[in-house]
Amino acid sequence: MTATVRVGVVGASGLAGGELIRLVGQHPHLKLTYLGGSSSVGKRPSELHPGMRQNHGLVVEAVDVDVIAERCDVVLLSTPAPVSAELAAGLADRVQCVVDLSGAFRIRSSEPHRRWYPKVERSDELADRFVYGVPELVGDEMVDASLISLPGCYATAITLGLAPLVFSLGLNIDRVLIDGKSGSSGGGVHLRTADLHPFRAGAITPYSPVGHRHAAEVGDFLERGKPGMVGSISMSAYGVSNVRGLLVSLYVLTEDEVDDRTLSRAYLRFYKGHQFVRVRRPGETMIPVPDPQATLGSNYCDVAALHDPDGKRIVVLGALDNLVKGAAGQALQAINMRYRFPEETGLTMQPLVPA
Amino acid sequence: MTATVRVGVVGASGLAGGELIRLVGQHPHLKLTYLGGSSSVGKRPSELHPGMRQNHGLVVEAVDVDVIAERCDVVLLSTPAPVSAELAAGLADRVQCVVDLSGAFRIRSSEPHRRWYPKVERSDELADRFVYGVPELVGDEMVDASLISLPGCYATAITLGLAPLVFSLGLNIDRVLIDGKSGSSGGGVHLRTADLHPFRAGAITPYSPVGHRHAAEVGDFLERGKPGMVGSISMSAYGVSNVRGLLVSLYVLTEDEVDDRTLSRAYLRFYKGHQFVRVRRPGETMIPVPDPQATLGSNYCDVAALHDPDGKRIVVLGALDNLVKGAAGQALQAINMRYRFPEETGLTMQPLVPA
Amino acid sequence: MTATVRVGVVGASGLAGGELIRLVGQHPHLKLTYLGGSSSVGKRPSELHPGMRQNHGLVVEAVDVDVIAERCDVVLLSTPAPVSAELAAGLADRVQCVVDLSGAFRIRSSEPHRRWYPKVERSDELADRFVYGVPELVGDEMVDASLISLPGCYATAITLGLAPLVFSLGLNIDRVLIDGKSGSSGGGVHLRTADLHPFRAGAITPYSPVGHRHAAEVGDFLERGKPGMVGSISMSAYGVSNVRGLLVSLYVLTEDEVDDRTLSRAYLRFYKGHQFVRVRRPGETMIPVPDPQATLGSNYCDVAALHDPDGKRIVVLGALDNLVKGAAGQALQAINMRYRFPEETGLTMQPLVPA
Amino acid sequence: MTATVRVGVVGASGLAGGELIRLVGQHPHLKLTYLGGSSSVGKRPSELHPGMRQNHGLVVEAVDVDVIAERCDVVLLSTPAPVSAELAAGLADRVQCVVDLSGAFRIRSSEPHRRWYPKVERSDELADRFVYGVPELVGDEMVDASLISLPGCYATAITLGLAPLVFSLGLNIDRVLIDGKSGSSGGGVHLRTADLHPFRAGAITPYSPVGHRHAAEVGDFLERGKPGMVGSISMSAYGVSNVRGLLVSLYVLTEDEVDDRTLSRAYLRFYKGHQFVRVRRPGETMIPVPDPQATLGSNYCDVAALHDPDGKRIVVLGALDNLVKGAAGQALQAINMRYRFPEETGLTMQPLVPA
Repeated sequence: MTATVRVGVVGASGLAGGELIRLVGQHPHLKLTYLGGSSSVGKRPSELHPGMRQNHGLVVEAVDVDVIAERCDVVLLSTPAPVSAELAAGLADRVQCVVDLSGAFRIRSSEPHRRWYPKVERSDELADRFVYGVPELVGDEMVDASLISLPGCYATAITLGLAPLVFSLGLNIDRVLIDGKSGSSGGGVHLRTADLHPFRAGAITPYSPVGHRHAAEVGDFLERGKPGMVGSISMSAYGVSNVRGLLVSLYVLTEDEVDDRTLSRAYLRFYKGHQFVRVRRPGETMIPVPDPQATLGSNYCDVAALHDPDGKRIVVLGALDNLVKGAAGQALQAINMRYRFPEETGLTMQPLVPA
Repeated sequence: MTATVRVGVVGASGLAGGELIRLVGQHPHLKLTYLGGSSSVGKRPSELHPGMRQNHGLVVEAVDVDVIAERCDVVLLSTPAPVSAELAAGLADRVQCVVDLSGAFRIRSSEPHRRWYPKVERSDELADRFVYGVPELVGDEMVDASLISLPGCYATAITLGLAPLVFSLGLNIDRVLIDGKSGSSGGGVHLRTADLHPFRAGAITPYSPVGHRHAAEVGDFLERGKPGMVGSISMSAYGVSNVRGLLVSLYVLTEDEVDDRTLSRAYLRFYKGHQFVRVRRPGETMIPVPDPQATLGSNYCDVAALHDPDGKRIVVLGALDNLVKGAAGQALQAINMRYRFPEETGLTMQPLVPA
Repeated sequence: MTATVRVGVVGASGLAGGELIRLVGQHPHLKLTYLGGSSSVGKRPSELHPGMRQNHGLVVEAVDVDVIAERCDVVLLSTPAPVSAELAAGLADRVQCVVDLSGAFRIRSSEPHRRWYPKVERSDELADRFVYGVPELVGDEMVDASLISLPGCYATAITLGLAPLVFSLGLNIDRVLIDGKSGSSGGGVHLRTADLHPFRAGAITPYSPVGHRHAAEVGDFLERGKPGMVGSISMSAYGVSNVRGLLVSLYVLTEDEVDDRTLSRAYLRFYKGHQFVRVRRPGETMIPVPDPQATLGSNYCDVAALHDPDGKRIVVLGALDNLVKGAAGQALQAINMRYRFPEETGLTMQPLVPA
Repeated sequence: MTATVRVGVVGASGLAGGELIRLVGQHPHLKLTYLGGSSSVGKRPSELHPGMRQNHGLVVEAVDVDVIAERCDVVLLSTPAPVSAELAAGLADRVQCVVDLSGAFRIRSSEPHRRWYPKVERSDELADRFVYGVPELVGDEMVDASLISLPGCYATAITLGLAPLVFSLGLNIDRVLIDGKSGSSGGGVHLRTADLHPFRAGAITPYSPVGHRHAAEVGDFLERGKPGMVGSISMSAYGVSNVRGLLVSLYVLTEDEVDDRTLSRAYLRFYKGHQFVRVRRPGETMIPVPDPQATLGSNYCDVAALHDPDGKRIVVLGALDNLVKGAAGQALQAINMRYRFPEETGLTMQPLVPA
């Protein structure tokens, strides 16, 4: 019989926080034992999240590291990066595992961390102890890990899209240009005029046309496996009218010749046994895929790689639900690996299509 | 140990058909053993439904009653009403249970059936054998039933909204005016210009301003429990920009005085033990509810009843996901009752909010 | 040659304010000479409104009654009702015409005004001097008027929908139940979580299920023409996913018999010569109408009246663009009447369909 | 006094056709005298286009070149490319001007035309006689032109975005990667399942991940002004949830150093006097621009050019309303140039924001 792991969520009122509560609640081996927050102290989950019925007998509590250490085996930090940095320092070695969903520990190298997260003070020693990455690539390191940092939603799709090219096909990549398109839930809940429905509903908006830190995060990670990647990655990010879901387009410039069939085989082989990554061909279903709408509510990341016959480039597409595979679902996937549960435990929900 | 029930789905390519495949696939005691269709013969589920990964080893087959009888314990008919009428006749007593999601057997009385479904020829004797209704109200009759007819998506929300007033509070209802607002998936997949994205995306459109057969269906059902209801129900239905979800507003005219507290208590008592009906107060969460977005992907129907201090009326609101509680989820709920499984088996997924 | 009227807009940063700037800017006989505001002082129109190019050489100024009186012939108040009440008192008789778009002077009778606008202190004497109403009905009173109060967006559609029944057909109306469906721009710009895109994008939400002051406003107006209307009107209002546009459904209960043909003729006759009201039949075009998407960006209000063969009711539908015919467009229509310009001057833009 | 030009529209039932009827109807010097079509023969404009009121006394007629030649000075072809090719051949020199909105004559060079439009047979001699291009760049050639071919909606935004780099700054461009994001009206009206609202409403879909003929069209045009451009342009195109509007992102790879200030100045200088091109900075207004929602319903194309400090690239953004500046509005702009009317005649409508 599998033991039950006691789980706490800090940042219970946010979008990812709500999704963590939802998914922990339907996981057979996890039990929600603590909710932490700041502005929402005293509220039950159902008061914060309109669809939620179950409250797990909990209300949001002001964050207290001692209480968390006593009540939780695992704590999920769905908090702003500066808060995560502080909480992780306080909770390391006091719970079995800290899983951080913020950017505080994503970039391991000190200098780029300071450049991209100038307001996030952290100990580089602590950062070195974190296992960072998508479970498909670094899952082995997650077994029994005490500190786990999860990639951003964009970084997850980008990494899963690039990994077979970099690690399996070993292409000479001159440059990667990333175009990211995301729904509004990717930006979290902030009371800004531009995020009000009348303005965001019709948007195709260049909110980050140059310089997105998820590109730096991916570069920092890939550089360790294949030196030379940092600096060759540029990213531009756009907001579109959806609420959930993101699509990344990776325009990979290479002089190497490789055809669609080779690409497809390499991707299928690379992700064999990793059921949450679906290798797709754009025309295989009734709508062109990868399209995040075909992943909604699921932990799938859909990827496809195509050779452009007109140019020296490969187009890689990656789609996922930013709140599931891009956040809460991936967090549970990491916990599954941490505790040697089957990877898909509690994550078998199929996409809600159409929605 | 619970035996596995073999389930067939006819109408596998439609929206409700896809949802049935999805939900049967995640039910612990059901096994998908047959898929029937017409235009999609030879296709695998993943070719028809963009989000679907699992194919259950099946392809869609041309409908053959003998094959169905051999391979299925339960057959779910997600077919146009005339097809359902014919298939139900052929399958009755040859499988353990036929569950029809069409309108073929919803109106039991012969005359109104012919008025509202003039093209659906059926045997009235066969119609009499069907158990019709929402599982919350007629679940006892569903135990061991061999023929089950499920209400339309609108009719489900209307019936659940009216039942406590009619059956518990026993109000003298002069008249019920229904205003229904529905997303585009409620209309199914039809290649019509008005259903193309450019025209449907911005619509608040009176597609059925007078005369909707779901009103007749509800009237026919309630009449049996409380004579006098037929004829007092009028309905107007509108299409809005959502894909999933519907909201019904029931404007119940009555001279009887009843306050919000009495209403709330009566609804809570009536639905005690029925976990899929959530009795709501509009201000209880961050967005006003009932709102179908708070039920998306779940089998919940949210209801609220409010007294209007300005007029002699009660406003009842009902919201649900038309493809789940309004179709496929409710079908599995009925099967759970048919086989004495716990009502919520395979249906515990929580709403996807926001989406 | 027509003289140019100097126009000021107070409330320049709001949605209706932006629309006023846009429409005044394309009117041949109006010249924008003043912009007033509070939070946006010092900003140019193009900084406040993302689509705007023309700044008319103006920046928003802190409101100063003397400055307005000096620089404007007409002042448009697109301000909260308490602000409008105060400004109207200060500006009456100091400019040629004050046009108020708020609720401050809509309900003429003192008692209902205080009930529905408890925070809006106004002089009842001043209120009596205002011409209130839709230009189609009270346009004659607007000629040379010095104080004009314009109906709310819902009230405009409701009044135009009911007027032919009340004033022309003279039906005995037992009761009117109104169901209003509106896009998010109807609520203005407020930094509330429920108005953020992730939550509002999927909403079909009962934000005002009982008690809407636009019903009281319409009742107060109609009562003067046909006593007995107050109290017979109930309203429930819902928010849907659109940004612009509203549809009102008026369920008019009557024992009088009247067929569709009679209704249609009466409406056509009543609105003959009023080109902004289009009498429609639901099936006359490719999408069912009235649908606000067919009025987007125009000053049209589409209406249709249908007899329900199943019940003793008439269904009246009214659709418009809440920011044009429901606000800024109607304001210019009123100014046209005030100055005896042809009613359609500057308002001939056709609907943007599809959008 | 300006003479009135008699205008015919062939392809009256399509989206661009409807927009042409709308805009010709509000142009002071144009008069609609002919409507041609195939499936919609006998219908009035208001039956085909739900928002339209004015019918101009016309019904759609089966296409007859002799009738067109008799009744029209200018004929606008909003027809599929093969139909345009045939009609242009028949109408050349029989009317004062043929304006083609299809792809039939966009690519002047014979070989690439055959590659990208294999089904469009045309005379290369006739093609040579066409003036092709955006009016801002080739307007002088349009004066008194008898044959005008207008760029595709994407090609318009791309060309306007690239022109200052290519023709004014004279940068050494190694490569241009284009990412296009478009609403559903860009694809026209086709009865395909993937275009039905339930599937298109949630899409972020790679409908043309490699090989888009608008890239070839732009390359063919720029090559004439700056040899070497063909082959360096790659394009990927995506469908998003909007109905109207498109955004192109041009990732321009160059070793040349150029800063934002230089870029901005060059663009402002290049488009000085061209009022329909607005040079933007992303943070200049409340939402990041260029965003097509800030151009909706107008003839504006918003452009911005940014240097990426992290990489050797310039990011150019271009946004427009595909049915106005990308089709019908640009057609009227061309006619204005053809007849020496002021460029903005009949096109002064400001964007509808928010919508």
